[in-house]
Amino acid sequence: MQQTFRLVIDCPDQVGLVAAVSQFLADQQATIVEASHHTDAKLGRFFMRHEIKTDTLKLTLDKFKEAFEPIAKQFAMQWKISDSLQKQKVALLASHESHCLIDILHRWHSGELDCEIPCIIGNHPQMKQFADWYRVPFHWVDFKNQDKKVAFSQIEALLEEYQADLTVLARFMQILPDNLCQKLAGKAINIHHSFLPSFAGAKPYQQAYDRGVKLIGATCHYVTKDLDEGPIIEQEVIRISHSDSAEDMVRKGKNCEKAALANGVRYHLQDRVIIHKNKTVVFA
Amino acid sequence: MQQTFRLVIDCPDQVGLVAAVSQFLADQQATIVEASHHTDAKLGRFFMRHEIKTDTLKLTLDKFKEAFEPIAKQFAMQWKISDSLQKQKVALLASHESHCLIDILHRWHSGELDCEIPCIIGNHPQMKQFADWYRVPFHWVDFKNQDKKVAFSQIEALLEEYQADLTVLARFMQILPDNLCQKLAGKAINIHHSFLPSFAGAKPYQQAYDRGVKLIGATCHYVTKDLDEGPIIEQEVIRISHSDSAEDMVRKGKNCEKAALANGVRYHLQDRVIIHKNKTVVFA
Amino acid sequence: MQQTFRLVIDCPDQVGLVAAVSQFLADQQATIVEASHHTDAKLGRFFMRHEIKTDTLKLTLDKFKEAFEPIAKQFAMQWKISDSLQKQKVALLASHESHCLIDILHRWHSGELDCEIPCIIGNHPQMKQFADWYRVPFHWVDFKNQDKKVAFSQIEALLEEYQADLTVLARFMQILPDNLCQKLAGKAINIHHSFLPSFAGAKPYQQAYDRGVKLIGATCHYVTKDLDEGPIIEQEVIRISHSDSAEDMVRKGKNCEKAALANGVRYHLQDRVIIHKNKTVVFA
Amino acid sequence: MQQTFRLVIDCPDQVGLVAAVSQFLADQQATIVEASHHTDAKLGRFFMRHEIKTDTLKLTLDKFKEAFEPIAKQFAMQWKISDSLQKQKVALLASHESHCLIDILHRWHSGELDCEIPCIIGNHPQMKQFADWYRVPFHWVDFKNQDKKVAFSQIEALLEEYQADLTVLARFMQILPDNLCQKLAGKAINIHHSFLPSFAGAKPYQQAYDRGVKLIGATCHYVTKDLDEGPIIEQEVIRISHSDSAEDMVRKGKNCEKAALANGVRYHLQDRVIIHKNKTVVFA
Repeated sequence: MQQTFRLVIDCPDQVGLVAAVSQFLADQQATIVEASHHTDAKLGRFFMRHEIKTDTLKLTLDKFKEAFEPIAKQFAMQWKISDSLQKQKVALLASHESHCLIDILHRWHSGELDCEIPCIIGNHPQMKQFADWYRVPFHWVDFKNQDKKVAFSQIEALLEEYQADLTVLARFMQILPDNLCQKLAGKAINIHHSFLPSFAGAKPYQQAYDRGVKLIGATCHYVTKDLDEGPIIEQEVIRISHSDSAEDMVRKGKNCEKAALANGVRYHLQDRVIIHKNKTVVFA
Repeated sequence: MQQTFRLVIDCPDQVGLVAAVSQFLADQQATIVEASHHTDAKLGRFFMRHEIKTDTLKLTLDKFKEAFEPIAKQFAMQWKISDSLQKQKVALLASHESHCLIDILHRWHSGELDCEIPCIIGNHPQMKQFADWYRVPFHWVDFKNQDKKVAFSQIEALLEEYQADLTVLARFMQILPDNLCQKLAGKAINIHHSFLPSFAGAKPYQQAYDRGVKLIGATCHYVTKDLDEGPIIEQEVIRISHSDSAEDMVRKGKNCEKAALANGVRYHLQDRVIIHKNKTVVFA
Repeated sequence: MQQTFRLVIDCPDQVGLVAAVSQFLADQQATIVEASHHTDAKLGRFFMRHEIKTDTLKLTLDKFKEAFEPIAKQFAMQWKISDSLQKQKVALLASHESHCLIDILHRWHSGELDCEIPCIIGNHPQMKQFADWYRVPFHWVDFKNQDKKVAFSQIEALLEEYQADLTVLARFMQILPDNLCQKLAGKAINIHHSFLPSFAGAKPYQQAYDRGVKLIGATCHYVTKDLDEGPIIEQEVIRISHSDSAEDMVRKGKNCEKAALANGVRYHLQDRVIIHKNKTVVFA
Repeated sequence: MQQTFRLVIDCPDQVGLVAAVSQFLADQQATIVEASHHTDAKLGRFFMRHEIKTDTLKLTLDKFKEAFEPIAKQFAMQWKISDSLQKQKVALLASHESHCLIDILHRWHSGELDCEIPCIIGNHPQMKQFADWYRVPFHWVDFKNQDKKVAFSQIEALLEEYQADLTVLARFMQILPDNLCQKLAGKAINIHHSFLPSFAGAKPYQQAYDRGVKLIGATCHYVTKDLDEGPIIEQEVIRISHSDSAEDMVRKGKNCEKAALANGVRYHLQDRVIIHKNKTVVFA
């Protein structure tokens, strides 16, 4: 895979901004593979992502950061640059449902998701078999026989030990405590099995069944302390009818969950998502 | 268009039910054009719709009703039979947005919606031009210079005068009073411009924009006294992104509104919808 | 899982047909879980599927067949009845792409696909690892160092040995010879990675890229001797744009392939598909 | 509506290109409303669209063109700049089907399509009533009682007389002669009622019915002399099943046709489409 740098910028909108950035890139002999811009006229804010080839580039990542800093300061940018070859470490949290876990694992194993998966953590032991198949260390954190606080501190310790850059809740059925949500802000992705904001909370398929909706869905979002209210990255829906039982809805919904989660994680890993307040810009 | 009778049944589930109905139909030499069944195992309830050709049928509609009554009683059926040639009268209510109104009118005019449209009622005068094009009587009911109660009693009187079988709220921006909702129960269809139950109430596109959802939609449902909570007939969605402004969302959403409303009205007119509690069985 | 019998009928349309079948079912105290009917007015043909609970049923499967035979004869039916507890044996053929194979295996392993998987046959050895994970016997049939005829006769022998009821080509990249197609008629399902009839044959994603289509898809169909022209069971599509490379299209398309194949196989296993000429009736 | 200029560029890819364009824009105090880039790595080609506000801009359209010309030359650009306030003239061609025509007319009338509609030309007289409603001049060109060549020369004359910038074939059922196709290259948009390249030519719904596909669609494309093979702008699909008759497919397909055509025309009018060889870049 070709090495690229990804330069992601979020700043107040103003004339001359794009010129300054693109002149800088041209001066460094950067070949632009992909460029995405978004102006939020209401907020007066500008969002920008460049993916550039490194083969003709004059600068290393560190030198790039140094050289770009003055421009960043001038335009009051929030920004980052990342190297596509430095793989992010993605920790997976799961419970007893395997479909999202297996889907992420397979996409990683086949090279579709470009990351490392240093560990899988379960609050049930069942997922160990799949972890073993994919040769990923599995940790069972017991939520039944010990206090939840203790259990979550164990999870926190594991995430630190494995130096997780991203934590993915692949149908993890425990609600993260506020302090962990804050610590993982913008670095933890959840999949909720409804088309949010409809049917937040428990048993969304049952809620959907009871309300008689004609489409169900899934929502991939960043975790925040307000349950199921974090910035949405991706959503999927599928048509249902009166003839679908609650069990049929679960089956259909799983396809949505897998698709939305896989896209959301990929967008994040490729630095395609910028969080602004409680919304996202996704340069898909 | 070929004449058909539509026999629609809703009753407790039990062995022998289908046999009794289909034997009755066979005895009358009824050729079945379309047969739809649904068993709700949870509720122990059975739903059934037959569309039969009348050319070989031995009975008139009235004689059919008479002859079928004993079976209906035996199985405690809620049932009806309708003649496809007896067109339903559909009254349209509108405000100042024309897209749903024009869409319904065009589908009716081109023969896609098999009904009569005896009148259009507006709480603003703007829709008169479209009513004139399609040569449908237009009534402006003033909601500004008179009390809402008075205005709604005028609407009620118009619906009676025109003997409306169905009332369609084609983006009618006034909330029907409870008594009118009850009077029109199962006979009034609304289009709400969100994917319910998300974003009920006012300004759903703005709500969707603020929440940052990645799909927007529209919901066609029966009117009940609980605003936007009636039985859902049809829903549509469309993908959006951060680059869609609130105005873009309105444009995209309109396509959903038109599609959902047109389907919902057609299903109703063809007796394809059975309301049970707060849900629908739709034999689409 | 509750035991059911599935009675599937395909015959010339005529008055009295449904009455006869449903009276027979009522006489046997059959509780109907699901009933589906389709009249093809053009062909004058009737298609029917009943799923009935066995707990109250008076007859065993064999006795049912015997008792129903006179009715079947009277109405010139092509028909079958199957027992949901008699699991079908599904042989999987694969090459070197794992996404469809893994998807089918996971859906089977988690109980979504109700069948047995007695073997996986590959024309490359790579899929053995996945077969091992799922503890399914794997057979590598060499297509490089031996004649194709020999290779296919080995496959044929394996299918016989394992008594496969259904053969699924999970992105199997070899074209079945005519005699095998005929032998497996209605019992072999393929997934083609385009929205057929567009882009039949080799490299459909490249063909789609070259033509500049705005949606790509996948088609699940029965195998016939005319390549990619068999009766279609299920199709899926996904939106693409100019910014999607041929590689992106492959990634997006894989999701379509998995979804279409999984649905197609499930429909077949639940006796929901009736082939008539080169089309299917699918009681989904 | 706020005035903007739209600068659209198509040229060989090279370092410094974006810098040169954005520096030029910054120098002219251009506020960028929307910026879209696409690099086709395979072709080594770069596509770019800027929409800029004119209120702070130092240059008129003519002066802009003059000032930009040296940059355009330097980078071998194919380019254009347009003023959003200079409305394009869109001539509509129709036959006897009204759904696409009415849809375009309504979207224009309600302000969604920002253009002028100077005339409607029909090869049948039926569409005159709709033209009259919308107060657009209607011309009936007789294809029955005169030679097609003569008829098409009349159409050509009308398009010249009305100075049409864009010609939209809203289900116009006559095949344009080669010379007219060439004259209108990139300026004539057709809607074909199938998901191309499937079912090109006559009676696509019947073709789709006969093949037994599970989704049908519509394709909006530029007209070229090779029938139904021009660059595709937009496509839509909808799910169908065995229970949909050929007539149902027509009804469902019409919704696709309207949606695809409306999007395609809007993209074109907003200079969002760049044709390159037989494909399009659409900055939607």
